[in-house]
Amino acid sequence: MSDLHLKMMRLALAEARKGVGKTAPNPAVGCVIVRDGEVVGRGWHKKAGTPHAEVHALAAAGAKAAGADAYVTLEPCSHFGKTPPCAKALIEAKVARVFVAMVDPNPRVSGRGIEMLREAGIAVEVGLLAEESRELNLPFIKWIQTRLPFVVLKSALTLDGKSATVSGDSKWVTGDRARREVHRLRGRLDAIMVGVGTVVKDDPLLTCRVPGGKDPLRVIVDSTLRIPLHAAILDVQSKAGTVIATCSADQAKMEALRARGAEVLSCRETDGRVDLTDLFAQLGARGVQSMLLEGGSHLAGATLRAGLIDKCMIFLAPKLVGGAGMGLFAGEGAFLMADAIALEEVRVKRVGVDLLVEGIPVKPKSQNH
Amino acid sequence: MSDLHLKMMRLALAEARKGVGKTAPNPAVGCVIVRDGEVVGRGWHKKAGTPHAEVHALAAAGAKAAGADAYVTLEPCSHFGKTPPCAKALIEAKVARVFVAMVDPNPRVSGRGIEMLREAGIAVEVGLLAEESRELNLPFIKWIQTRLPFVVLKSALTLDGKSATVSGDSKWVTGDRARREVHRLRGRLDAIMVGVGTVVKDDPLLTCRVPGGKDPLRVIVDSTLRIPLHAAILDVQSKAGTVIATCSADQAKMEALRARGAEVLSCRETDGRVDLTDLFAQLGARGVQSMLLEGGSHLAGATLRAGLIDKCMIFLAPKLVGGAGMGLFAGEGAFLMADAIALEEVRVKRVGVDLLVEGIPVKPKSQNH
Repeated sequence: MSDLHLKMMRLALAEARKGVGKTAPNPAVGCVIVRDGEVVGRGWHKKAGTPHAEVHALAAAGAKAAGADAYVTLEPCSHFGKTPPCAKALIEAKVARVFVAMVDPNPRVSGRGIEMLREAGIAVEVGLLAEESRELNLPFIKWIQTRLPFVVLKSALTLDGKSATVSGDSKWVTGDRARREVHRLRGRLDAIMVGVGTVVKDDPLLTCRVPGGKDPLRVIVDSTLRIPLHAAILDVQSKAGTVIATCSADQAKMEALRARGAEVLSCRETDGRVDLTDLFAQLGARGVQSMLLEGGSHLAGATLRAGLIDKCMIFLAPKLVGGAGMGLFAGEGAFLMADAIALEEVRVKRVGVDLLVEGIPVKPKSQNH
Repeated sequence: MSDLHLKMMRLALAEARKGVGKTAPNPAVGCVIVRDGEVVGRGWHKKAGTPHAEVHALAAAGAKAAGADAYVTLEPCSHFGKTPPCAKALIEAKVARVFVAMVDPNPRVSGRGIEMLREAGIAVEVGLLAEESRELNLPFIKWIQTRLPFVVLKSALTLDGKSATVSGDSKWVTGDRARREVHRLRGRLDAIMVGVGTVVKDDPLLTCRVPGGKDPLRVIVDSTLRIPLHAAILDVQSKAGTVIATCSADQAKMEALRARGAEVLSCRETDGRVDLTDLFAQLGARGVQSMLLEGGSHLAGATLRAGLIDKCMIFLAPKLVGGAGMGLFAGEGAFLMADAIALEEVRVKRVGVDLLVEGIPVKPKSQNH
């Protein structure tokens, strides 16, 4: 691929990036129209129900689209949904070639947009910067293929691995910048999940407190329905709502929680606790594509051991508690160091005074598919 | 300062760097002689008892030294030691100016070399890249001013802060590259220290296993003399020797250890344990300028709480134990997160698949001086 093609697809990816976290249940997509080496139109998908990236880019290009090259970060759609198919729009605009970073991950439509373009005599090149495009839409890709949410474990630890001191104090592990980054993250994901222990201990709101941020759906895993009725999270009026996931059959407590505005979600029970696989399937079925797991240590440990974490984001504060304190995961964990769960695609960056280490946990072998 | 001066002092620092870890009890020093903007001589101090950096650089410059500028990373010495004073050599070579990065940190000689040069009519500029020069010789500077060793805490942790699993297994936390780096580190420091618990559990050799590396003095903190007589460390024939630091009065065990080739060092007792401040003073008095603290968690915790750690080097493996496991520090640690010990001058780099986070612990206020 020539430098020009790479450069133009990078521009399309930059367009797509503007929509990340705003387009659910649709993916983030960007498009650039190029004629004689010059960009004559660009666009990105802003919100479900509004025009797709290709439509914005073609509108900007106008008559110049005829004979031009289109760069799209995801295969153009081939079906009538809330908007007409983009493949059709590209054909009608008479573009000469279409460069597609990756095919539609939806197994039911994958390849049909490309087919439609080729049938109309348009040359289509697939795979340019596919990996970059995939990374933009990891939650969408997982959900469209499995109907399960993409789960991000977020934690803040000192360099000696403590999320709290021996007294339980955790205010604050990280600095301002990292804490703001977490609020921004909440605004980009569909849901946020904590164990009831965290609600009892910290009484959090779990809202997105950055200007213009949207609240995630709050999910509290509470196997025995021990959440206090006076919990702050039940007071907060948020459009996103609060779900209490339980395997308790305590109808009176359920009614009391519903009266406080929360939804109670009954889940399958495994070893006396909410079956996380069942809970995640229920959340996925209602369209939750991405979920932030913020704690506590029992829930984080159970989720990790069940192979249900898709990405870790660990903020490390450059400080030492210097003793026992509380860790990220409760429970026994690996018995041998060789059985520790490896992270792949590890990235490190500074966020204010802190470090952010990101990585993808390698699934236990039995769960690889 | 002009770019030329900075450039030449950087060259002198690069010369000095060649000697780091090889010059004890002397500091690492580099020198560059520059005439009409060209380097006419350069040199570095290789080993105690051999010529200083200035002597090598002047020899290389020969007659061209007359009227030239000398760049030295540390104030030239003014006294006869194992070699004649370098200030005198610079005067005799008739250099025009001397640029000195930092004054001699030894409070008893500080400034006298500069004075000697100025009295001979040579212009002296002090302070160019002083911070860079200081960093090259942190152990020497601490030791020459306090007669205490510069203590580096080294640890290998998983990203969730575990040095071992719940079963005690720790083979291996980090990858090959990081483990080789630790052996290289051992070769650069004068001593290595572990608690007896680590000897009992891991039966380590604590030698420097890289080609051409020199073994550090091995120091084992063993308050009650419970080291097994069959410990591997007592079998290893190493020129550097093994010191057992204790506050036990068990003469029979002492004799048995001495018969195995170890030295037994009696230390003051505090709360039934070896008083670390006394131990460090005894080691410093015998010329130990730098010491690597490799564990275990009780000794690391006690050393940190006593404000005796000068630098932390924490290797982080991108993996998760996912449960309780063993941490870096035993004991209670900070009660409030606000009382955690902050690290300054934090640096992060990749070492193979692992990360290395380095930092300087901020001393508890009562110990700041």
